[in-house]
Amino acid sequence: MDISQFDQINPPPRLLMGPGPINADPRVLRAMSTQLIGQYDPAMTQYMNEVMTLYRGVFRTENRWTMLIDGTSRAGIEAILLSAIRPGDKVLVPVFGRFGHLLCEIARRCQAEVHTIEVPWGEVFTPDQIEDAIKRVRPRLLLTVQGDTSTTMLQPLAELGAICQRYGVLFYTDATASLGGNPLESDAWGLDAVSAGMQKCLGGPSGTAPITLSPRMEEVIRKRKRVEEGIRTAEHQDGDDQMILSNYFDLGMIMDYWGPERLNHHTEATTALFGARECARLILQEGLDNTIARHQLHGEALLSGIQAMGLEVFGDVRHKMNNVLGVVIPAGINGEQVRKLMLEDFAIEIGTSFGPLIGKVWRIGTMGYNARKDCVMQTLSALEAVLNHLGFKSVQGAALQAAWERYASEGRL
Amino acid sequence: MDISQFDQINPPPRLLMGPGPINADPRVLRAMSTQLIGQYDPAMTQYMNEVMTLYRGVFRTENRWTMLIDGTSRAGIEAILLSAIRPGDKVLVPVFGRFGHLLCEIARRCQAEVHTIEVPWGEVFTPDQIEDAIKRVRPRLLLTVQGDTSTTMLQPLAELGAICQRYGVLFYTDATASLGGNPLESDAWGLDAVSAGMQKCLGGPSGTAPITLSPRMEEVIRKRKRVEEGIRTAEHQDGDDQMILSNYFDLGMIMDYWGPERLNHHTEATTALFGARECARLILQEGLDNTIARHQLHGEALLSGIQAMGLEVFGDVRHKMNNVLGVVIPAGINGEQVRKLMLEDFAIEIGTSFGPLIGKVWRIGTMGYNARKDCVMQTLSALEAVLNHLGFKSVQGAALQAAWERYASEGRL
Repeated sequence: MDISQFDQINPPPRLLMGPGPINADPRVLRAMSTQLIGQYDPAMTQYMNEVMTLYRGVFRTENRWTMLIDGTSRAGIEAILLSAIRPGDKVLVPVFGRFGHLLCEIARRCQAEVHTIEVPWGEVFTPDQIEDAIKRVRPRLLLTVQGDTSTTMLQPLAELGAICQRYGVLFYTDATASLGGNPLESDAWGLDAVSAGMQKCLGGPSGTAPITLSPRMEEVIRKRKRVEEGIRTAEHQDGDDQMILSNYFDLGMIMDYWGPERLNHHTEATTALFGARECARLILQEGLDNTIARHQLHGEALLSGIQAMGLEVFGDVRHKMNNVLGVVIPAGINGEQVRKLMLEDFAIEIGTSFGPLIGKVWRIGTMGYNARKDCVMQTLSALEAVLNHLGFKSVQGAALQAAWERYASEGRL
Repeated sequence: MDISQFDQINPPPRLLMGPGPINADPRVLRAMSTQLIGQYDPAMTQYMNEVMTLYRGVFRTENRWTMLIDGTSRAGIEAILLSAIRPGDKVLVPVFGRFGHLLCEIARRCQAEVHTIEVPWGEVFTPDQIEDAIKRVRPRLLLTVQGDTSTTMLQPLAELGAICQRYGVLFYTDATASLGGNPLESDAWGLDAVSAGMQKCLGGPSGTAPITLSPRMEEVIRKRKRVEEGIRTAEHQDGDDQMILSNYFDLGMIMDYWGPERLNHHTEATTALFGARECARLILQEGLDNTIARHQLHGEALLSGIQAMGLEVFGDVRHKMNNVLGVVIPAGINGEQVRKLMLEDFAIEIGTSFGPLIGKVWRIGTMGYNARKDCVMQTLSALEAVLNHLGFKSVQGAALQAAWERYASEGRL
């Protein structure tokens, strides 16, 4: 290997308008360039405590156990599922897109008995549909996705907590793609566990996963407690339920690391924690309601523009996430060619799709740092130009005018 | 919550001379402040391929599957163990410190039948001891720790590959704390899997774990392949061995993500990857042999200084890691008080210990960016001052003189 071929990192500038990752807020990247401190330095444990406080604000919860899992968003999902599901437990997964399948897949790896209900991609479930399935299946856990970027749909969750309470079901949601850009009320909605990711509406890079656990979920997990050899002492007591089949994702041990015991587990990913702290701090400075409203505004401006361009939108728009839009690729247009021109000639990335939507739908995101007017206007302008170049006819400037009108309606021209 | 209480990140400056994490190289932190690009952007997949090439150099291997696991070093360990160990498999773990216990603990979570051999803390195993145990146990895997920071010992591995070959045993080592600071020859030593961490000799922050897998290990893992629902198509074939009981750590899926298939799995932790790339690039620019020699030089200078101060060293010095030194806390001295004064009055962190060594041994690291003369001299100087302040008698300046002499012997005064 000739090491001189490897220059310092210098990626091309990109405007990331896909379903995530999106451009990180530069203030988050600056926070992440901070020099390290020791794992048990009083300054470090103070930052860990601050992260817990800040994410309580973002998750809208009083849950003590609100912390980070060192890994990408699916590490947060797997930590919760592995810690909560005992082999043989019944779980119910309402599947309305790819990430519902992912929950099934992870639950099967946890050796759960997985039951699903499905709606076509582009739709969501009514509370009645979910309650009926709970009555039939009698699961120990209900595993939901709040916002599934594969379909752009946002599953209403507000009424599900009361249903779960009624049937003694633990209620989890994967809010990776929705948190910060759409309302989520962990406590008011009766959620027992929520996990998220940094690279969507929170405006940071992938690599750490905020989670929150209700006291009821804590109790379930504590019953499976094992303190690892090498650090255990006589006073440590194991729980009486089955051991969690992972060390890295054992939330009991992770609680003992984040809690006052500070029992050594992993070496906290300090840089990722600094970034996660800054993401939450910026959102709470803006005001979480304002952050969500910003996502709604720019999402709607994009929607207006796309529709004014004569393009069809995918799925049930009443249940669309604020931060991602599915755009049907018009007949006669090669979707990948459009993405290629957008990327190469405008340095703008828009998303492709998974599964049944491959080749049929683009996904355009407006989230986190990129939930901004200039991002929406640049993207609409470039897309109009590329489509025109490839022979798709639209009224020149109509998309931009429609977006401007949406902004004008809120005095944001 | 009053958000104005949360200021931007601003930790106190620290010189981290413990067993890790240590100060990250500023060039690595700068690389990590780079703006993001999309997960399948040609520039991103190019960087992923470069990371594979660079870590082949660091691991001294031709293994195709040399890549990153998104998580801390124990995520790398667990990904390998979960992917290789089937429930009921016999594994042998030679335990000479805390991290041997950790391998046992993780292997038990993988439902392995765990067999151990032990030596007292401060010693290592001879190849014969390990071969005898292999003959007796007949394990499917030998799980070793190369450098166990809990005891500062470095287990010789060079002869173990041939033994494993003879008995058809898969050979793994955890090189978290040793890689980059001590010789490791993955291919020449017949290793089937190695995992590492960033926050020791590699000079980066914790948060991603480089691993390498031999073709034999790949074969074992491919037999357990499952492609997840939601992205699987008719042409995907499952393996005929037992499914891996984790999605996040399923190395088969992670290979398909890093390989030309680029099957979506997690969203790569781009910032951590940029950092890991820079760590490897800087080491290979310096030349890996030079990096190891630098660790040896500064480790020996520290050792000379500590001995000249009249302090006793812990363990068998012939088998000490280059990058960590165990120092016996002298009688009548409160180890924690020393650490507190070092941190508060000199901003230097040295390490405490685990298990049987708690309160008996400090651990002082000289690794990665902090394997430097000024770090060694500052640490010796501060420690002499603090010990003198607390009533421990030593010859003024003798420690520094001894370190200078060690540097002089290599013309590095």
